[in-house]
Amino acid sequence: MLGVIGGMGPLATADFFRKLIDATPAATDEEHIPVLIHSVPQVPSRPGAILRGGASPLPALLAARDRLLAAGATLLAMPCNTAHHWYAGLVDGCPVPFVHIVDAVAERLPAGARDIAVVATRATLQSRVFEARLADRGIRLAVPDDATYDRAVQPAIDAVKRGATREGGRLLEPAIAALLDEGAAVVVLACTELPIALDSIESTLRDRCVDSTDALARACVRAWMSR
Amino acid sequence: MLGVIGGMGPLATADFFRKLIDATPAATDEEHIPVLIHSVPQVPSRPGAILRGGASPLPALLAARDRLLAAGATLLAMPCNTAHHWYAGLVDGCPVPFVHIVDAVAERLPAGARDIAVVATRATLQSRVFEARLADRGIRLAVPDDATYDRAVQPAIDAVKRGATREGGRLLEPAIAALLDEGAAVVVLACTELPIALDSIESTLRDRCVDSTDALARACVRAWMSR
Repeated sequence: MLGVIGGMGPLATADFFRKLIDATPAATDEEHIPVLIHSVPQVPSRPGAILRGGASPLPALLAARDRLLAAGATLLAMPCNTAHHWYAGLVDGCPVPFVHIVDAVAERLPAGARDIAVVATRATLQSRVFEARLADRGIRLAVPDDATYDRAVQPAIDAVKRGATREGGRLLEPAIAALLDEGAAVVVLACTELPIALDSIESTLRDRCVDSTDALARACVRAWMSR
Repeated sequence: MLGVIGGMGPLATADFFRKLIDATPAATDEEHIPVLIHSVPQVPSRPGAILRGGASPLPALLAARDRLLAAGATLLAMPCNTAHHWYAGLVDGCPVPFVHIVDAVAERLPAGARDIAVVATRATLQSRVFEARLADRGIRLAVPDDATYDRAVQPAIDAVKRGATREGGRLLEPAIAALLDEGAAVVVLACTELPIALDSIESTLRDRCVDSTDALARACVRAWMSR
């Protein structure tokens, strides 16, 4: 059973679930992957912990992990980029494989691409979740400037978290276009709220982006099939 | 924590999860309902058991229930109409409330409506899940005739189960229109694959239907808020 540490946010977890189903080669119910989804959003703020020294979410994440393991999970994933700041703590003593979202994204990058833009929470960028995991690939990572971040990226994330997905898409799309104009080969949507925003307005820029939620779903299907 | 006995099918469970989130009055992640979703589709066929004397799914459903209870579920729901044939067995000895999908649908029926059509699996109709639960309301239930069932309803369900949601919508829509033409005040989409089919083609008939998935989601939100 695939165990999903979710709820960060709930809509992103639901989006992951849908993309997992869509990515599974199945013609009947029974051919789908058995999944247990722990969508409990009452987790201390990840940005609060990384940026402002707030309470660590790690104990809550470990509790979710252990609940999933106790229920029989044999593979784990967590559809939240920022929470991967605590990945090392989560795999410590974990008896089953745990798919890393950045590894999943790396598999979806175009071969040979050197200039990649990453759109994420400020906490994900500051904790260098992507840089650390992609360091040996010789990739240059561009990120939105502070003004764009404040005007477009964070407001888009906040909009999705309150259910205003189309508003999020309209806020985000120009920031994606600017990163592509500045030379990015692709833009990684490295916060699981962001694909929901662009999907909801059926943005034509989706084809130029790597969706971290979809990438994680596909990596989970591969990991499940090859277990 | 709301425990969800799902996987029948997975896409219907994902649709329920999305509708639960949409129905929750929340502006931040933390205001959403904590949920544990058991989406394990390896459950003996419900139609197989009801129509053809196949293995009962009850042991698998009880195992799912008990796994959710052990993990801390304090409220249960099951987004599959047919599986409610085993509702009595599932609530037997169950220490927490379990929202019944037909009660949830009943709350969404227009006040005073007497003629209601129900579109469901043949197994749901044969096991009289809706008739039994709505018996004291003086409602007349119409169902599609056998030819329509074989030509439209079951093929639409099968299409959704293999991911062809728009094909399912195109198959189903004329059958819904016919039931409305024949005098139904509303049509209950009493199989959780069917709303996905109509949603995917953005059918204008959606407003004349009661979506059992959405009804169950709303009933769960109410039950959670009033606990």
